[in-house]
Amino acid sequence: MPLIRKGDDLGDQIVQAGKESGVTIESGDVVVVTQKVVSKAEGRIVNLSAVKPSTLANSVALQMNRDPRHVEAILQETSRIIRMKDNHLIVETKHGFVCANAGIDRSNVEGEDRVSLLPEDPDRSAEKIRRRLKELTGADVAVIISDTFGRAWRMGHVNFAIGVAGMKPIRDYRGEPDMFSHTLHVTVMAVADELASAAELVMNKRDRVPVAIIKGYRCPMGEGNARELVRPIEEDLFR
Amino acid sequence: MPLIRKGDDLGDQIVQAGKESGVTIESGDVVVVTQKVVSKAEGRIVNLSAVKPSTLANSVALQMNRDPRHVEAILQETSRIIRMKDNHLIVETKHGFVCANAGIDRSNVEGEDRVSLLPEDPDRSAEKIRRRLKELTGADVAVIISDTFGRAWRMGHVNFAIGVAGMKPIRDYRGEPDMFSHTLHVTVMAVADELASAAELVMNKRDRVPVAIIKGYRCPMGEGNARELVRPIEEDLFR
Repeated sequence: MPLIRKGDDLGDQIVQAGKESGVTIESGDVVVVTQKVVSKAEGRIVNLSAVKPSTLANSVALQMNRDPRHVEAILQETSRIIRMKDNHLIVETKHGFVCANAGIDRSNVEGEDRVSLLPEDPDRSAEKIRRRLKELTGADVAVIISDTFGRAWRMGHVNFAIGVAGMKPIRDYRGEPDMFSHTLHVTVMAVADELASAAELVMNKRDRVPVAIIKGYRCPMGEGNARELVRPIEEDLFR
Repeated sequence: MPLIRKGDDLGDQIVQAGKESGVTIESGDVVVVTQKVVSKAEGRIVNLSAVKPSTLANSVALQMNRDPRHVEAILQETSRIIRMKDNHLIVETKHGFVCANAGIDRSNVEGEDRVSLLPEDPDRSAEKIRRRLKELTGADVAVIISDTFGRAWRMGHVNFAIGVAGMKPIRDYRGEPDMFSHTLHVTVMAVADELASAAELVMNKRDRVPVAIIKGYRCPMGEGNARELVRPIEEDLFR
């Protein structure tokens, strides 16, 4: 993919890059797009030189030995602090996602003082790309916007879904029989997260491969969104 | 795959099932095997009628409206209780994995009162399958033993790796440049977990598809194990 700038037509870029790679987008495909290019196309880039740190941001930045303007940008996208310890800032974003630094980072953002924010509404971003791909190719696809998450208890990061359109993000096996005809009680698979993780394996942080096309997966049909992947706080044992 | 029983040669079963599916196992493949068949082959099935609940198991089971023998089986595999609330029992297993019910469940286990435990040492299980596949096919593969995990903050389950052989489970981008030559500071991807998630998408809880062969993925080379995926408690913000 070329460098993405504010206002770029991501759907068109995806179709063009697909053609150059010999990939035709077809109905049933799952198109996984990393958050970073969506944020860039939507102009969700902040120049830290324009950010005025609050008293809290200054205080936290001092303790964490971090840039107070970056901390301020994080707090502005935050609805709840989950952990604030050592130099870690784990927060719940306005969308409900629990992640480090409200998903704000500078990797692969051009310029010294610029950081990317998560899209305002990643489900809407996914739906917009889905519609554009339909217009351009006639194909009915599912679209997932992915981002990189750390996890409690486990080392390393994985990609999960933050925006979903054209599929249900969860496959629900509850009530179905297992192979010995016991009823399966608790198996609800977050397939949109698994698709995002699978896609990450063929992307590359350093090269310009921010999109993966997954073929041959039979998605749970229906309209769904990534808000279904956010555990309500009253059911959450860890908030 | 056929039904797996204690003592079965899983490596041989995988090669046979591959042949029947037209899949040849080749060097560089990643063979993902679900925990359930590994536990069965290793005889890690417990008949609850032989389990005597402790006082604690009886007390917890009463509060949770659960089978005290099942609770006892869980506690016997537990090294630390992480959350005990409503009917949820989130524990750290002897291996260090944080999961519900110490990974013990009855789905796809034959018989009314039988449950499967996690393998004693899933890394050793993975290495054993890897060696057997090498013997049978000459191919140098990576092997991942996968299991289904719930997550803090997010709905639904995904598959992660509990055993790894023949690859490093983590791809470390730290110190490498991003596309604007900034140094990437924090990006350490748990690719073994992402491979386990990708594999789940082509498995099926109800059918007999407990193994997936992933082709064309360039694994981080080297000897690694799933213990590298366990966050040390002193670095963990959520234990």
